[in-house]
Amino acid sequence: MPLRLRLEASLREPDGRWRLAAEEGHHLMVRRCASGDRVEGLLPGYRVELRLERRGDVWYGWEESRRSDRGSPVRLTLLAGVLKEDAWDALLRMATEVGVSRVIPLLCVRSVPRLGGERLSARRERWRRIVGEATKQCGAPEPPEIAPPRSVEELEEGALPPDRFAAFLSGDARPLPGEVFGDEVALAIGPEGDFSPEEGEALCRRAFRPISLGGRVLRAPTAAAVGCAWFTVFHEGGAP
Amino acid sequence: MPLRLRLEASLREPDGRWRLAAEEGHHLMVRRCASGDRVEGLLPGYRVELRLERRGDVWYGWEESRRSDRGSPVRLTLLAGVLKEDAWDALLRMATEVGVSRVIPLLCVRSVPRLGGERLSARRERWRRIVGEATKQCGAPEPPEIAPPRSVEELEEGALPPDRFAAFLSGDARPLPGEVFGDEVALAIGPEGDFSPEEGEALCRRAFRPISLGGRVLRAPTAAAVGCAWFTVFHEGGAP
Repeated sequence: MPLRLRLEASLREPDGRWRLAAEEGHHLMVRRCASGDRVEGLLPGYRVELRLERRGDVWYGWEESRRSDRGSPVRLTLLAGVLKEDAWDALLRMATEVGVSRVIPLLCVRSVPRLGGERLSARRERWRRIVGEATKQCGAPEPPEIAPPRSVEELEEGALPPDRFAAFLSGDARPLPGEVFGDEVALAIGPEGDFSPEEGEALCRRAFRPISLGGRVLRAPTAAAVGCAWFTVFHEGGAP
Repeated sequence: MPLRLRLEASLREPDGRWRLAAEEGHHLMVRRCASGDRVEGLLPGYRVELRLERRGDVWYGWEESRRSDRGSPVRLTLLAGVLKEDAWDALLRMATEVGVSRVIPLLCVRSVPRLGGERLSARRERWRRIVGEATKQCGAPEPPEIAPPRSVEELEEGALPPDRFAAFLSGDARPLPGEVFGDEVALAIGPEGDFSPEEGEALCRRAFRPISLGGRVLRAPTAAAVGCAWFTVFHEGGAP
């Protein structure tokens, strides 16, 4: 893998060169880079190949090529039981950071906030703002889509990716690392207190495979971050 | 893997039987269990083998054996740049949930709170309370140790596990899934804004291997949860 630099703090000169931020220059010195070396520059949504040019203490990078960074090769839909405000916000932020493509909020039996009508529409607006901010902060090309909330029974199989997993605290769940999947995946995470037994059955009827995230009881936002990262972070550079 | 039940909501009868909570009973019905079947019961710090006995709607479990659940086979030390209060609390909680054994708070150049003297001792008390609560909630056998905070330069090599990794946002970091490690591991996560170049060099001099958690900029608590989970959650059931 080539040396990688983040370009957010660097400046584009009129002739197209990047004048690299002082800190990135320092980094290049430490790594004993020289004029003519090639490095990879990261921008939100793009990766550029740069040819380095050093002038005294200042480093420049000439763009040799630029390609869209689609992020993870796995397109992941997260189905998550709606939570109290703080925990739900944390879940949305972390799901965005680790690269979820779509969030389907699940109105579960044990979901604490009861959403409906005006309240729901205000909440969805807020959710879009949160994932928008997280998208910018983490440098993702676009925010995850937030689908309208629904119950597990209202899930239509045809609208779901072919490989489906649901994290359960008990039952005959198997560790996630043993599972095989393609590039379109759904992962369901219950609300605090887990899915109800009926919701668990409804998920199994829809071909969700029961998986475990270890012997401990992870809170829902942690389970979402860790479970999603299995697909999007740890499979980014190819299968682990 | 046998069917697993959590036992926190079940009652121990005077004769030693577990009278299983109604919901667990429902789960057993759904899974078509019968008297005489064996299942695994999970308690904080223990796993018990149970022989089932059904009487009408009530299910009982007789303990056949009990063993201590040491959690992950990997003993993980998390070195984390100290963060602002809310983010740091979230990091400590998630690190506890995913099974970190020890946290070494790093006083980094870019750590926002400047800790010292009385302020530090009050903060450490608070940190211990937070990991104590998270330990109970997630059912771990014991809380992670919280070491005294120190700078990267103050890290003594002799006190660190043999396999050491540091997550860097840029540089020649390699994806974590390609790395090989034993059962004693250290993972370093920088503060918001990452380690300074000097801190990065100091870590590399101490044999920390630069690793990447994907092309996006994860906030520090998310990076800690996801990075630690690689070692403790996804390697719990053997190598992925």
